[in-house]
Amino acid sequence: MSTIRLFRKEKNTLMNKILYIDPAYDDSYINLFNNHLNKYAEANITVEVESLEGQQGPEHVEYSCYEVMVMPDIVRKVIEAEKKGFNAVIIGCFYDPALQAAREVSKNMMISAPAESAFSMARSLGSNMSIIVGRTKTIPQIKQNVYRYGMAENFAGFRSVDLGVLEFQKDSKESMKRIRAESRKAIQEDNADVIVLGCTAELGFHESLQKELGVPVLDASIAALKYVEMLVNINNKAGWSHSRVNAYESPPHDEAVQFGLYNK
Amino acid sequence: MSTIRLFRKEKNTLMNKILYIDPAYDDSYINLFNNHLNKYAEANITVEVESLEGQQGPEHVEYSCYEVMVMPDIVRKVIEAEKKGFNAVIIGCFYDPALQAAREVSKNMMISAPAESAFSMARSLGSNMSIIVGRTKTIPQIKQNVYRYGMAENFAGFRSVDLGVLEFQKDSKESMKRIRAESRKAIQEDNADVIVLGCTAELGFHESLQKELGVPVLDASIAALKYVEMLVNINNKAGWSHSRVNAYESPPHDEAVQFGLYNK
Amino acid sequence: MSTIRLFRKEKNTLMNKILYIDPAYDDSYINLFNNHLNKYAEANITVEVESLEGQQGPEHVEYSCYEVMVMPDIVRKVIEAEKKGFNAVIIGCFYDPALQAAREVSKNMMISAPAESAFSMARSLGSNMSIIVGRTKTIPQIKQNVYRYGMAENFAGFRSVDLGVLEFQKDSKESMKRIRAESRKAIQEDNADVIVLGCTAELGFHESLQKELGVPVLDASIAALKYVEMLVNINNKAGWSHSRVNAYESPPHDEAVQFGLYNK
Amino acid sequence: MSTIRLFRKEKNTLMNKILYIDPAYDDSYINLFNNHLNKYAEANITVEVESLEGQQGPEHVEYSCYEVMVMPDIVRKVIEAEKKGFNAVIIGCFYDPALQAAREVSKNMMISAPAESAFSMARSLGSNMSIIVGRTKTIPQIKQNVYRYGMAENFAGFRSVDLGVLEFQKDSKESMKRIRAESRKAIQEDNADVIVLGCTAELGFHESLQKELGVPVLDASIAALKYVEMLVNINNKAGWSHSRVNAYESPPHDEAVQFGLYNK
Amino acid sequence: MSTIRLFRKEKNTLMNKILYIDPAYDDSYINLFNNHLNKYAEANITVEVESLEGQQGPEHVEYSCYEVMVMPDIVRKVIEAEKKGFNAVIIGCFYDPALQAAREVSKNMMISAPAESAFSMARSLGSNMSIIVGRTKTIPQIKQNVYRYGMAENFAGFRSVDLGVLEFQKDSKESMKRIRAESRKAIQEDNADVIVLGCTAELGFHESLQKELGVPVLDASIAALKYVEMLVNINNKAGWSHSRVNAYESPPHDEAVQFGLYNK
Amino acid sequence: MSTIRLFRKEKNTLMNKILYIDPAYDDSYINLFNNHLNKYAEANITVEVESLEGQQGPEHVEYSCYEVMVMPDIVRKVIEAEKKGFNAVIIGCFYDPALQAAREVSKNMMISAPAESAFSMARSLGSNMSIIVGRTKTIPQIKQNVYRYGMAENFAGFRSVDLGVLEFQKDSKESMKRIRAESRKAIQEDNADVIVLGCTAELGFHESLQKELGVPVLDASIAALKYVEMLVNINNKAGWSHSRVNAYESPPHDEAVQFGLYNK
Repeated sequence: MSTIRLFRKEKNTLMNKILYIDPAYDDSYINLFNNHLNKYAEANITVEVESLEGQQGPEHVEYSCYEVMVMPDIVRKVIEAEKKGFNAVIIGCFYDPALQAAREVSKNMMISAPAESAFSMARSLGSNMSIIVGRTKTIPQIKQNVYRYGMAENFAGFRSVDLGVLEFQKDSKESMKRIRAESRKAIQEDNADVIVLGCTAELGFHESLQKELGVPVLDASIAALKYVEMLVNINNKAGWSHSRVNAYESPPHDEAVQFGLYNK
Repeated sequence: MSTIRLFRKEKNTLMNKILYIDPAYDDSYINLFNNHLNKYAEANITVEVESLEGQQGPEHVEYSCYEVMVMPDIVRKVIEAEKKGFNAVIIGCFYDPALQAAREVSKNMMISAPAESAFSMARSLGSNMSIIVGRTKTIPQIKQNVYRYGMAENFAGFRSVDLGVLEFQKDSKESMKRIRAESRKAIQEDNADVIVLGCTAELGFHESLQKELGVPVLDASIAALKYVEMLVNINNKAGWSHSRVNAYESPPHDEAVQFGLYNK
Repeated sequence: MSTIRLFRKEKNTLMNKILYIDPAYDDSYINLFNNHLNKYAEANITVEVESLEGQQGPEHVEYSCYEVMVMPDIVRKVIEAEKKGFNAVIIGCFYDPALQAAREVSKNMMISAPAESAFSMARSLGSNMSIIVGRTKTIPQIKQNVYRYGMAENFAGFRSVDLGVLEFQKDSKESMKRIRAESRKAIQEDNADVIVLGCTAELGFHESLQKELGVPVLDASIAALKYVEMLVNINNKAGWSHSRVNAYESPPHDEAVQFGLYNK
Repeated sequence: MSTIRLFRKEKNTLMNKILYIDPAYDDSYINLFNNHLNKYAEANITVEVESLEGQQGPEHVEYSCYEVMVMPDIVRKVIEAEKKGFNAVIIGCFYDPALQAAREVSKNMMISAPAESAFSMARSLGSNMSIIVGRTKTIPQIKQNVYRYGMAENFAGFRSVDLGVLEFQKDSKESMKRIRAESRKAIQEDNADVIVLGCTAELGFHESLQKELGVPVLDASIAALKYVEMLVNINNKAGWSHSRVNAYESPPHDEAVQFGLYNK
Repeated sequence: MSTIRLFRKEKNTLMNKILYIDPAYDDSYINLFNNHLNKYAEANITVEVESLEGQQGPEHVEYSCYEVMVMPDIVRKVIEAEKKGFNAVIIGCFYDPALQAAREVSKNMMISAPAESAFSMARSLGSNMSIIVGRTKTIPQIKQNVYRYGMAENFAGFRSVDLGVLEFQKDSKESMKRIRAESRKAIQEDNADVIVLGCTAELGFHESLQKELGVPVLDASIAALKYVEMLVNINNKAGWSHSRVNAYESPPHDEAVQFGLYNK
Repeated sequence: MSTIRLFRKEKNTLMNKILYIDPAYDDSYINLFNNHLNKYAEANITVEVESLEGQQGPEHVEYSCYEVMVMPDIVRKVIEAEKKGFNAVIIGCFYDPALQAAREVSKNMMISAPAESAFSMARSLGSNMSIIVGRTKTIPQIKQNVYRYGMAENFAGFRSVDLGVLEFQKDSKESMKRIRAESRKAIQEDNADVIVLGCTAELGFHESLQKELGVPVLDASIAALKYVEMLVNINNKAGWSHSRVNAYESPPHDEAVQFGLYNK
């Protein structure tokens, strides 16, 4: 057994690089996410954070019309990431935008996104998940994912703090106050036992919050990071990757070239 | 009562213009869809067909990575359509791509898409719908819509004819043969009573097919047309439009300008 | 293309006659529904309204035991309507009573009913439908239809105004006041974005209500009218009719004669 | 404790009378059902069987249009049964027709029907129920009940023997042969562990069938009998009756008189 | 017919013995349950009550870790019961612990448990069941059974009275007060029409409660008793037993001996 | 940022110990699982494997009556593991036995089990999971978990290879042959894109199988290992643990002592 372990340990000293895509044409959050994610990453993981490049584009994707505007560049980032040697990509938005597309174009990389990741953990950590969203506007789309990811029977409901994506970090005391108040109600009135912060911008709150509340509080981007670390691990060790049949079948290379998939 | 009727009739002589967006960078199907849709449109409806403009881009959206590439231009087409005075837009792909986004950016226009439309009709025409898809690749995404649109209890299953989107019209005899064979199996083996052709490119088959099979065969683009005609009618007569609360809330105008929503 | 369009226009000048069955032994609402429905009908549609004939019978069908009493006469009305040349029938009760039976006995006619129609529209107009019912008594039966018609994931809940079917039109100010109050709560507390008035007798309220509330308010009988207009259109243009396999298979003619289906 | 037991035993020597309604205008099955049901009834239970009276009417209710024709007389039979001192009524058709209406009009009586009864037992006897139906025509309506009664997760599917309701007893050897063949397939191909005979006319087969097949085979009318015996028992002992709130609220007496509920 | 009836009556004079297992290492409730259950049993039924034997063990099973501790002895009790000639066993805990295992090891006995039994009755007695639980701790596990037993569409929700299993009988006035208060809220706020007392220890309340509330109030252990009486009856009369295929397949005898299934 | 990384790396050099419980009174598989799991573990993870101790007990838990017999010792093993300093426990059976109980009694440890783990991964790796089970006997219980863990919409079905738990390793060539054949059918006939081996004893097959089949093949015990590694990581880095509210609330210490939870 020892030989195996040594082999494994050597292999493991190789760093795995993960790209976190902040799907916004706005680089002001890059450092914030960089510090945040590397703080929570495992020792053999390096996280790099990139936002989208372009002269103009959505700085948040609360609206579906903004979301679709950033999707092509998310896919391009994924394609570039693989060329640059990343082992995995995180799509940094709680709508899990372009997740299927990203998995289609990936080759050896693993792809995660916050809702799929956080819901999986919430199922293992408790029995009744509550999602604290920024604005009620975001509920229908997240609710679709609650059903799609099979969480309907373990769902305590939504609570909105009435803050836009870009407002969470502006007055973090006020944000914290509102998130705390709604989380409390979720626990007391909706019988929630796990709180999911339903926006990647709700960052920096979960640690003190969970101490106060006594239940796990899941930060969206950390959930996506830890989940993708697992995906990288299962890929490295067991050879499990996104299936190339059905949902994540890759497009034919020549056709994709012809259709401009690899262009900017 | 007569005054009302007269008023209504006059109002009704106004033509309603509907834009059918073929979400592909390929104008070779425009005439086909133009003839097809105007043949089935009501007297007070004019359908115009546009594909996407650009030097390069997907000519079909069977893959999700292609689908997301066409979404921003779908949204832009919708915005332009409203400026040009269209009353409604049809998004011409059975995945119903960018439907939420399109409804967000619409003002007085109504928006439809094939799956939502055909599923509603299938529910009223029968009790057990079968979907004939081009390739099994497309099943997971369409299946999500089967669930999302609440058709799970009335769903006989998928049957694939193993034809890509662009192949349906190449050898229409062969296509017809395969669609017929799978539809027969759907009726006999899966107990289907309504057949839905699960790709807008499966065009030109439904009429002779339903005569042979003895059950309604729903053409995807016609379904979307007739459904949006109803949406236009309920908008004109009863003032019912896409709700501006929750899912279809429009983005703030200034922000949308800043984010380049209205640019090409 | 012009030949086709001309042909279509000529064909379309033919009026389509729709029978609205008020499933009650009470003709006092005939004029009300006649004016109401013809006001909202398309130019090529004439709506006639009939209640049930007989010396005695339920004047409303809030109770299931009343509902079953009116069902045979609904079916007979449908059969007669076809003989009289109607193109479609609307069953004017939000329970959608005898809808399957009516479709079984129809030949070339299309049949609609309010709940199936309104739920389909609600799905296209918003993401979270609330139903304002007369009395809580009616909730279990309507709830069954919410599930059967696949609306569970888009359902904000019921709100009752504690008014019997025959009370809505007695003191319409009071009715309006209650409907408005419950609709407000549905929007504010249940996060509804579309209001469905869950009784055909809740008539005359939707227009002013939706102006006040800022969300679409669906009138049950108008929804059934506009939906059946679509069914007539798809039947005329695309030949889509109620499937004669499974749910809507018609009974053998001789047996039906022997069993008295066509008698009064 | 002894006093109580004695009291109970005395009380129990009182016979409970149950009316089995064969919802057909055809008295040729009365003896068959009478012998069948009394053979399986408990000692303190007497079953009487009545079909519907009238010069003309459906002799079976395979079609929904026939089903609605018999519903008013089912309700009247229920009302009469209470006057005659019956303790319970069984509605003898696997569609469970007019079950809600019958429970609304009942006062101290308990009401059962075959599908609700058999599904409950099937859940306790196995994990994967298969329903052997007469004709595929009946599937959509029974399927609705599979969902409504919460059996979707324990449902192996339908198997049809292609026999009309009135054909089961004509050539019982042939019927048995077909039911056996389809039940075998249900067990072997669909992994069924409980067989439900999905028509009350599939009578006389279950005993030898379950010996051959080695799994319980539920006869529809016996299931309804044994279930209603339980309902009678819980009513007698624990005072549990059909709730008078919501679904089974009774109509106001004066209104019901005025609407002719109690007339023939 | 008379011969059959006589035979049946004679057979029926044989008493059926039912064992009620109180799954706790605590015999202080034996008399209480004995009186309670025999009061509600039919004349031909004798109920015996046994708790678990052992020097030490859980006195209640509110926690899953306690529940698994009592499961092996539940199974052993079931095996012994068959040897002693019992006709049926009731597992006396609302979690329905070890129900599948008990059915696997039973031979000719029928097995019931409270939740499966009460939910079935609730479905037949009303349309919207509310469950009054002791503590919120128990909700997730009971909720799983609400889904598993197919009651999701007929479920008004949980109400907790904040009493541990062993507290219900300590101050029964206080218990009654809390149960009454929560049941009232369930009816008024959640629109419940049937109340289920979601713990076998909530005993002695249902009769006066249902008089006050006007809706059926289901006692958990009585529900399990009356349901198993039905199972005994269908077994005696129709030969229906727990299926030996799939879920309730019995283990091979020799293997079971070797694995110590029959040891204490 | 560097300080943080260093700190993290140091912390990370600490090994995490995971206990894999083989829930059987049979130590003949210990070495097999030990080699298997340590081969796939991360560098900072040591897996120890223990079976249950006792003179007699089930050597597999295919039957629910065997499963309940091993549950108390699973819980005791979990309690001991915490005392011995393990960071996590894996319950090594695809039924996920005693998972809730184990999480209740855990303090700082994380607990995983194969089905919950594999289903989560299957959702991220594909869209249509097929489960290859040993015998059809195991299907109902695993199917309950398919629903409970929200995988119903992504489930291609079961395929059985007709091998008992203890037979998989006896003639591994034959086992491989059967698993391969059924997996092929799952992909070709059921449109599966991820294969889950639904028994921890189906070990040693997945690597060559997935090369042949071209889709990921999930080994049950490896899935549980990699998933619990993630749970350990989120616990170490983000402080997320099993919630102590609701489902996983721990029993009061004194009561647990009194009830013998900590005894053997």
